[in-house]
Amino acid sequence: MTKINKNYLELKDSYLFSTIATKVSEFKTKNPDKEIIRLGIGDVVLPLCSSVIDELKSAVDDMASDSTFKGYGPEQGYLFLKDSIKNYYKEFNVDLLSEEIFISDGAKSDLGNLLDIFSKDNVVVIPDPVYPVYVDTNIMDGRKINYVNGTFENGFLPMPTEDLEGDLIYICSPNNPTGATYNRSQLKEWVDFAIEKKSIILFDVAYEAFIYDDDIPHSIYEIEGAKKCAIEVCSLSKTAGFTGVRCGYTTVPLELECDNVSLNKLWLRRQTTKFNGVSYIVQKAASGVFSKEGRIKIKENIDYYMENAKIIGNALDELNIKYIGGKNSPYIWLQCPGNMSSWEFFDYLLEEVNIVGTPGVGFGENGEGYFRLTSFGHKENIIKAVERLKTLKF
Amino acid sequence: MTKINKNYLELKDSYLFSTIATKVSEFKTKNPDKEIIRLGIGDVVLPLCSSVIDELKSAVDDMASDSTFKGYGPEQGYLFLKDSIKNYYKEFNVDLLSEEIFISDGAKSDLGNLLDIFSKDNVVVIPDPVYPVYVDTNIMDGRKINYVNGTFENGFLPMPTEDLEGDLIYICSPNNPTGATYNRSQLKEWVDFAIEKKSIILFDVAYEAFIYDDDIPHSIYEIEGAKKCAIEVCSLSKTAGFTGVRCGYTTVPLELECDNVSLNKLWLRRQTTKFNGVSYIVQKAASGVFSKEGRIKIKENIDYYMENAKIIGNALDELNIKYIGGKNSPYIWLQCPGNMSSWEFFDYLLEEVNIVGTPGVGFGENGEGYFRLTSFGHKENIIKAVERLKTLKF
Repeated sequence: MTKINKNYLELKDSYLFSTIATKVSEFKTKNPDKEIIRLGIGDVVLPLCSSVIDELKSAVDDMASDSTFKGYGPEQGYLFLKDSIKNYYKEFNVDLLSEEIFISDGAKSDLGNLLDIFSKDNVVVIPDPVYPVYVDTNIMDGRKINYVNGTFENGFLPMPTEDLEGDLIYICSPNNPTGATYNRSQLKEWVDFAIEKKSIILFDVAYEAFIYDDDIPHSIYEIEGAKKCAIEVCSLSKTAGFTGVRCGYTTVPLELECDNVSLNKLWLRRQTTKFNGVSYIVQKAASGVFSKEGRIKIKENIDYYMENAKIIGNALDELNIKYIGGKNSPYIWLQCPGNMSSWEFFDYLLEEVNIVGTPGVGFGENGEGYFRLTSFGHKENIIKAVERLKTLKF
Repeated sequence: MTKINKNYLELKDSYLFSTIATKVSEFKTKNPDKEIIRLGIGDVVLPLCSSVIDELKSAVDDMASDSTFKGYGPEQGYLFLKDSIKNYYKEFNVDLLSEEIFISDGAKSDLGNLLDIFSKDNVVVIPDPVYPVYVDTNIMDGRKINYVNGTFENGFLPMPTEDLEGDLIYICSPNNPTGATYNRSQLKEWVDFAIEKKSIILFDVAYEAFIYDDDIPHSIYEIEGAKKCAIEVCSLSKTAGFTGVRCGYTTVPLELECDNVSLNKLWLRRQTTKFNGVSYIVQKAASGVFSKEGRIKIKENIDYYMENAKIIGNALDELNIKYIGGKNSPYIWLQCPGNMSSWEFFDYLLEEVNIVGTPGVGFGENGEGYFRLTSFGHKENIIKAVERLKTLKF
């Protein structure tokens, strides 16, 4: 008789976004004339930039002709894209080899699938609040989770302590949902901790392109020793508006070992067995992100979103609402005013000014009393939203 | 201290295609003037058909404009594509609901990832010879494997026996590598067996589009009871030349249960947690496969490959070489003449007539003494290859 993976029964159903959808839909039914502004879901709105579109068109032409048609590609990605990424890393003084870079269909897939190569007996360290995928993928495998607490006091940047136990350590910087970013010396502490404990850091830099300050590393490999203890996962979703295109990349250094086994070799074996590579068309599109023109164009889009973040931040300042993020990150993480809970503030914003955000408690217990706004919107809507916000009294 | 998944150490390195590459490369160095014809790897050569290209172009335009840009889509796929597939199934009198169909980036990913939702304690039934991914993905999870033997005597179509034990049963029909196909009554036996034993069949129909005979089911759901015991995995790789585009689909019926838990619900949870859906552009391309014009065009391509298969088959008949496949399948599975082993015949073909095929032993122990040729080539090369074959004496 077939048995299921019983760990799945331990998962909590995530009602966060479905509850938001239900509440919004009910509000719309009751108030058909009200215009709702959504600052909730972290999805981009600007179209793909011209250098990406040009590559897409040329890739489609390749697939239409006998002489340029592409069938199976390498599971770990085409060299033309890996080399572009390798060159991008050089800007941060990080030297990687092509075989250390694996092209993926996005950070979410790799963050989940990477766990395949690790024992179920590993204990996992996960910050709270954080991207819920870290928690759920480990519950699916039955791993023990130790949480490290992000609080307003530590700037939502938990640090290692002597008594912390963990074999796999998740770090997301710039953080989703808080927008908090670790600086160089803080990351050095984590790297030293991981080396001492023989742990592996899973470093999520999906939002690295939003970093403006020099002291915030774009890659963990900017930190000495990191190649001995860290896997880095990145995505073009927010960097270049690829949420619907699907492309990311994961770095597993050749010198990274566990039990005297190369993790690079294990991950290659996982990917060649359970994955057939990212669409050629998508990989060509991704190469357009890293061209000289592409880099300029995507920077313009990021500047656009960061200008939005500034507009929101300024309004919160005026309202005396405490927040972090919005610098080096597209997310603004605010303390709900008037001691409201996350969901109370959600309802209040929706009812009073018809703005939808994300209750912080959806990202972990420490998120209770906090609220996430995103700067991924059209400027005119952001301006309209803050004008409405400013009418509120707390 | 971090521990790896030790099951990975039990995997045998697959030297099949790398050994082929080495041998071919050595031969070329010694014989720079000889023209090699490759009938080895199962990759398509014809470019994408016009209806697919048209959809790709229109999708790229969508992504370039603010008003039509697509960000995150549903993890389980866009309804426009699921509905096309639903309608395709109706041609085989199979009624499915949209929520029973999951769009994937190919059969290889889903065949591997589906195992996530099942207990490691399940015993697996795998035919020998077969697509090596079934074996490797289960070794990675540490599951016990019971092989069922394909032989020339049973037409490489093993059937269930009373003493066979297994919770997850892999069936690939049309089979890779043998090209063997189960007919309706044979599949009914497997379905009845699975229902009796409370097992789940993982049915791989990546080659269903090559079925011409009415008695060979395109879907296991053509068999009564299959919705209670089978998950079906399909791919557009061979159907429409999508090996480099990457799109497939997996069906998990709503009525399919294990331990009183809905497998559809578990798979949805797995996919929404570890996957972010297939590229919008690729899903649009896939919808072009199922349009009226697309169906005609892809049939022309399949007819082209099957004409190749016929040319190869006729040559083998003339040479008195025994084979199966080549009907309802792009693969031809031949018995190596003169009692040669798989690798002896590989060397013989390469040296004597400069043709590259795939040694059958690479697909399992029962493949020893057999050899796979594929019809995925340009017709002029196939004709050239059989002319060379006909010069051989056994």
